[in-house]
Amino acid sequence: MSVLVTGIGELTTNDDDLGTVSDAAIVLDGNRIAWVGPASAAPDADGRVDVEGRAVLPGWVDSHTHLVFAGDRTAEFAARMAGEPYTAGGIAVTVAATRAATDDELSAVLRRHVTEALAQGTTYLETKTGYGLTVADEVRSARLAGEWADEVTFLGAHLVPLGWTAESYMDLVCGQMLDAVEPYVRWVDVFCETGAFDEEQSRAVLTAAAARGLGLRVHGNQLGPGPGVRIAVELGAASVDHCTHLTPSDVDALAGSDTVATLLPACDLSTRQPLPDARALLDAGATVALASNCNPGSSYTSSMAFCVATAVLQMRMSVAEAVRAATWGGARALRRETGDGAVGVLRPGARADLHVLDAPSTTHLAYRPGVPLTHAVWQAGARVR
Amino acid sequence: MSVLVTGIGELTTNDDDLGTVSDAAIVLDGNRIAWVGPASAAPDADGRVDVEGRAVLPGWVDSHTHLVFAGDRTAEFAARMAGEPYTAGGIAVTVAATRAATDDELSAVLRRHVTEALAQGTTYLETKTGYGLTVADEVRSARLAGEWADEVTFLGAHLVPLGWTAESYMDLVCGQMLDAVEPYVRWVDVFCETGAFDEEQSRAVLTAAAARGLGLRVHGNQLGPGPGVRIAVELGAASVDHCTHLTPSDVDALAGSDTVATLLPACDLSTRQPLPDARALLDAGATVALASNCNPGSSYTSSMAFCVATAVLQMRMSVAEAVRAATWGGARALRRETGDGAVGVLRPGARADLHVLDAPSTTHLAYRPGVPLTHAVWQAGARVR
Repeated sequence: MSVLVTGIGELTTNDDDLGTVSDAAIVLDGNRIAWVGPASAAPDADGRVDVEGRAVLPGWVDSHTHLVFAGDRTAEFAARMAGEPYTAGGIAVTVAATRAATDDELSAVLRRHVTEALAQGTTYLETKTGYGLTVADEVRSARLAGEWADEVTFLGAHLVPLGWTAESYMDLVCGQMLDAVEPYVRWVDVFCETGAFDEEQSRAVLTAAAARGLGLRVHGNQLGPGPGVRIAVELGAASVDHCTHLTPSDVDALAGSDTVATLLPACDLSTRQPLPDARALLDAGATVALASNCNPGSSYTSSMAFCVATAVLQMRMSVAEAVRAATWGGARALRRETGDGAVGVLRPGARADLHVLDAPSTTHLAYRPGVPLTHAVWQAGARVR
Repeated sequence: MSVLVTGIGELTTNDDDLGTVSDAAIVLDGNRIAWVGPASAAPDADGRVDVEGRAVLPGWVDSHTHLVFAGDRTAEFAARMAGEPYTAGGIAVTVAATRAATDDELSAVLRRHVTEALAQGTTYLETKTGYGLTVADEVRSARLAGEWADEVTFLGAHLVPLGWTAESYMDLVCGQMLDAVEPYVRWVDVFCETGAFDEEQSRAVLTAAAARGLGLRVHGNQLGPGPGVRIAVELGAASVDHCTHLTPSDVDALAGSDTVATLLPACDLSTRQPLPDARALLDAGATVALASNCNPGSSYTSSMAFCVATAVLQMRMSVAEAVRAATWGGARALRRETGDGAVGVLRPGARADLHVLDAPSTTHLAYRPGVPLTHAVWQAGARVR
């Protein structure tokens, strides 16, 4: 069953050859894109949808979320807005609630948030463990995450749980816990930050993961300057996430590497941190992604549109840069931007993930902040909204 | 026909006696609220809706929009995001397009934006003339505005149109134009700013309006310090809007007056201005409103939720302060917060304007920025979403 989507006023492909196309059409065939080009040259298809001049872009690729959780931290957020600082300590509250939850309860939370994100145009999503922090709870988190998310990351190294020394917990994470979660995950991440894991500990986690052939991700440079970016680049991580506090040498390191700088502006706003210097990264030639960091503590939003609007209005990214970072950039951070079934890009052979805006151009994502602009969504060829 | 809305997890009433109520219910009767209180004590009604623990608050009162317009300024926005400064000059582009539009075209723009705002919980809305700037075009704008908005403001003094001297245009605005629009408007406003109207001209407009018994509003202190706040307070304006650049004496003047300080944070972000010092105003005791300033030039959003989230995340307003400013504050800025049919407040006798969130508390409006949280809306007793 093929579908011709026509009447596309502005088509953002993220493909270097196709570029941005006016008066465009796309043919979806099964779960793939079969054809992209000017509407006047479009081939026939079994079905036909006219989007009446609207803008179409790839579905958002949200490359950083923490959706395997239970419990409520609304009061912590309200307290922070009343002037209390954000520290990593609040994570322990979610760990206790997550351990106490049933599988069904955790699945319901995952389902609710993945569905909410999809309704806003997020068609490809990574999520993480990290609120279990026992072997059994991390395995359970990874297993349930895989039922709802496209990519699963092991973040046993989120925080040293109560009752453990850092040394003994490191041994567990890098050994028995990693062995147990390995079948369920593609990526391994570490929270490299004062109060979480230091450079030596972070290297140990990442090295153990690389030895098993798993991909690497790093939480780094969120709450202050630190070694996160440096070791991410050195060890060939696919992405280093947050990047709120960068030195010029961090920027240079990223620009000279294949490591994506994933910026999480909703988190910075929700924790009253400064916004990252996206301009320095882009001007130096680094690859930038935007992601939601959806989690109940530091950034409880699933709105990629909010991240894009913030990037344009407050981080001096152009609309084109921000939209690319929230689609192709996220895909690149997950190493899914190329080949058959690529995401974050609209070209023949890519996965048929389309986001249709109630607007004539992607500029409206920043021009109309907060206005829900998602008109229709196709995920892997199926219209889901 | 009466309706019992029950299962309200958190009810924000903005009524000093009722306060915020847990496990609450409301009875709507016709277009008014008949009863408010704990669900356990609720009286019977003809119909019944269970909102299953959701938060309920008064519909947004958007006390500052400019919705009588035609034309497109997307490219101007994109240019500004690329580093060009915002001046009042772009208004002339909209004036030309608005004059050229038919009544039906202007009505369609009004309908589209009022409907879009209502779907996001805005149940009471002010809009302005100011893109006509001839007697006939201002009258037409006021007449069409009255068909769609709850309150209409005459803003002939938006900009001196091409072909006029300031002096001769002032004579027109304060005389023939004011005479002609008077039957269609409740309020008169002036853009008191460098590049628009100076103190003397602003006083002339406001004095002429007051002499006819019309209410006064002022655009002031948007692009830099100026006399706007001072003359608004001195002449007893209901509201002075923008307040981005205030001196300590402006803050003191507002705190000692009945003039509301209406903050428009989406406009400040969309023009890369600083955000206003809401904390100084609130701490001094001034009354603060939040509004969208929805217009195609400086602030093209209808999202009051975005304004509330920005106020909390970036202007250090508490959630309670921001929600009150976007409901009761807007109503107070329009002098509609008291008496039979009051808006921005939920008490017996008030207009039945209810906003039901897909969240257990109003805190989620800031905790979950960008996520569309409007679950249901009643406007004057009718469920519209």
